[in-house]
Amino acid sequence: MESMDIKQYMSQIGVNARKASRLIGKTPTAQKNQALLAIATALQENRSAVLEANRKDLEQGQQKALSPALMDRLELTPSRFDSMLEGLQQVATLTDPIGEISNLSHRPSGIKVGQMRVPLGVIGIIYESRPNVTVEAASLCLKSGNACILRGGSEAIQSNQAIARCIKSGLESAGLSQDIVQVIETTDRAAVGELITLPEFVDVIVPRGGKGLIERISKDAKVPVIKHLDGICHVYIDEHADLEKAFNITLNSKTQRYGTCNTLETLLVSEAIAAEILPKLNQAFEEKQVELRGCPQTLKILATINSATEEDWNTEYLAPILSIRIVSGLDEAIDHINTYSSAHTDSIVTENYSHSQRFIAEVDSSSVMINASTRFADGFEYGLGAEIGISTDKIHARGPVGLNGLTSQKFIVFGDGNIRT
Amino acid sequence: MESMDIKQYMSQIGVNARKASRLIGKTPTAQKNQALLAIATALQENRSAVLEANRKDLEQGQQKALSPALMDRLELTPSRFDSMLEGLQQVATLTDPIGEISNLSHRPSGIKVGQMRVPLGVIGIIYESRPNVTVEAASLCLKSGNACILRGGSEAIQSNQAIARCIKSGLESAGLSQDIVQVIETTDRAAVGELITLPEFVDVIVPRGGKGLIERISKDAKVPVIKHLDGICHVYIDEHADLEKAFNITLNSKTQRYGTCNTLETLLVSEAIAAEILPKLNQAFEEKQVELRGCPQTLKILATINSATEEDWNTEYLAPILSIRIVSGLDEAIDHINTYSSAHTDSIVTENYSHSQRFIAEVDSSSVMINASTRFADGFEYGLGAEIGISTDKIHARGPVGLNGLTSQKFIVFGDGNIRT
Repeated sequence: MESMDIKQYMSQIGVNARKASRLIGKTPTAQKNQALLAIATALQENRSAVLEANRKDLEQGQQKALSPALMDRLELTPSRFDSMLEGLQQVATLTDPIGEISNLSHRPSGIKVGQMRVPLGVIGIIYESRPNVTVEAASLCLKSGNACILRGGSEAIQSNQAIARCIKSGLESAGLSQDIVQVIETTDRAAVGELITLPEFVDVIVPRGGKGLIERISKDAKVPVIKHLDGICHVYIDEHADLEKAFNITLNSKTQRYGTCNTLETLLVSEAIAAEILPKLNQAFEEKQVELRGCPQTLKILATINSATEEDWNTEYLAPILSIRIVSGLDEAIDHINTYSSAHTDSIVTENYSHSQRFIAEVDSSSVMINASTRFADGFEYGLGAEIGISTDKIHARGPVGLNGLTSQKFIVFGDGNIRT
Repeated sequence: MESMDIKQYMSQIGVNARKASRLIGKTPTAQKNQALLAIATALQENRSAVLEANRKDLEQGQQKALSPALMDRLELTPSRFDSMLEGLQQVATLTDPIGEISNLSHRPSGIKVGQMRVPLGVIGIIYESRPNVTVEAASLCLKSGNACILRGGSEAIQSNQAIARCIKSGLESAGLSQDIVQVIETTDRAAVGELITLPEFVDVIVPRGGKGLIERISKDAKVPVIKHLDGICHVYIDEHADLEKAFNITLNSKTQRYGTCNTLETLLVSEAIAAEILPKLNQAFEEKQVELRGCPQTLKILATINSATEEDWNTEYLAPILSIRIVSGLDEAIDHINTYSSAHTDSIVTENYSHSQRFIAEVDSSSVMINASTRFADGFEYGLGAEIGISTDKIHARGPVGLNGLTSQKFIVFGDGNIRT
């Protein structure tokens, strides 16, 4: 398309979405659930067509020599396909957040004031490679009463379009407007530029992908962005730690999965117990082939590891690498975290009550933990039922964003002819 | 100052604020309250100096021929001065939102997950003329554990600086850092441009003032903005309305004060009862010297009033003018409101249960009311204790923004050595 056409195309998508958002915002829970299940049925019925479209994307990806990591994320394996269907069924069972009334109280003037949970309106989601995000994102927006505009990566265009046809067919068979979920059909990058600068049609943008994508979008957006930048997560082993818990939590936080945003990247150790625990950890990490990088004090205990530089404290490795710093105690640990953490997830290991309370109050991150693995920072583990992402922002939503993160609360007033005097 | 100096000056203010935010974020409630009362004492002790500074601002305002409205807002009358002191005492009595833990629940993995209310961090507030905002804004930020950077209008610079000295003295006498509240000392506009583009130091911007100011700031900000644009508020008189309630609510919503954002601007009337209620309202509005502008159908009932154009439905008069439109019923009323309302405050007058429930669910505004005057949309009337503004945004905070609007919630996890499997 020409750039003028893209402008018109996106603007029309925006108009459709705004209109559809008014409809889905007042759709009863039962009908929304019916649509979710109908989408699952449509996907199941068109399984071979979707997998065939995905095969074409994979072929073209191979021709374009996409990286193995990208190719892996692009592939819809049978088990990933089944997970999409399960996801839809699970979202159908979640409690509908819309219409929930809270804090209703009587005021001296005679009015009753409360807050009602309402959809945000239109949500734009920009993501890369994984075609299953198309279904995940659509299902969460639908359940929370929002219309959505989805823009996947160009490498997954055929998979996404095949999935989009199933979504539209599911919406239709539940008697809902097909415009509630619109999947952008062009791979032109200009479409993203348009999407993030249409505040009259789009209420919030959720970018899901690498740091580069998210920074680019945040920089240019004229629409609020719920974003997730780095996950530079810390575990602090306090001098009052139970060392067995510390050992297990550190190992699990780093090695359960290397490429996730809630993976441990920097370990902080109180100097009082460093000489006791670090050699044990070193041995375990050696077995797991995790490269350790230590501060000068760490190197005095672990002579064979590499030394860490300032850059290490600022790095999200997403790889079997761990930086280690010995601190004088709680104050220095909190200082280090509030300086270098990406405000994602940080955990203290301690049996000391006051230290645990200070850590949880003073560490300014979206998830703060006591005696637990950072790997728990996840919408499912937190009981949100699902997540559209993890926010490292401070306003609106912090941490895993579930259905409630796609809603807001308006004030409602019940009167009986009351006037203000 | 030269523009390079402004950059350095603002950047230093940012550094100071970030540092101070770490301190005030963990300051105990009692000490925050002590500071609020100490500021009140300092203001009382320096009453004549502050009023003298205000007199100088007023003199210069007269020389610059500021509008009477602006001059009125600029003036610190004795009663306004007393209100500042009362406001400080009132904020001291409010419940401290910080540290509140909610939704704590046990998860199957063994961890306990909840949410803890925390300060946003550093709040930038940009406002015009009214010097009492300096105290209001500072007190709400302080109580909610935030550092703040305040930038008042150039016309109030001397009043604001005199007030700032009292705030600093109060902070100091409570043993708190003076950098918790920083009032910008330069009137150079470039300082605002810097303030709204320092995301590393400022977490949110709250502009308070005219639409022009707010639009300018929203356009250029690189920091999230909690904003309030127009207040185009509606009352819809349903065919099932109690006409006495309808009469009182309409009159109160329009005439209790003309210049406030929660004042009624467009009245919608169901055609079934228009001929009965409009002549009575016309008579009352004539007595109050309110100009009425009607749609063609309204003009058939009220022959002597002016006709309304499309522009009227989009106008916040802030004046004794009211536009009136007759609609076929609830659907058309909701359509009109969702098209033209500024999403501030809209009220239905009806005795019909289903109509009341549909209105409250389907009108997408920050305050939606049944049988109550739009004038109730206010932080004090809602029981928030105070308000820093009214948000017409959808994310983070909608409607009157009190202490909670200056906070967010982080996830907290209590474990006992739990790891993820």
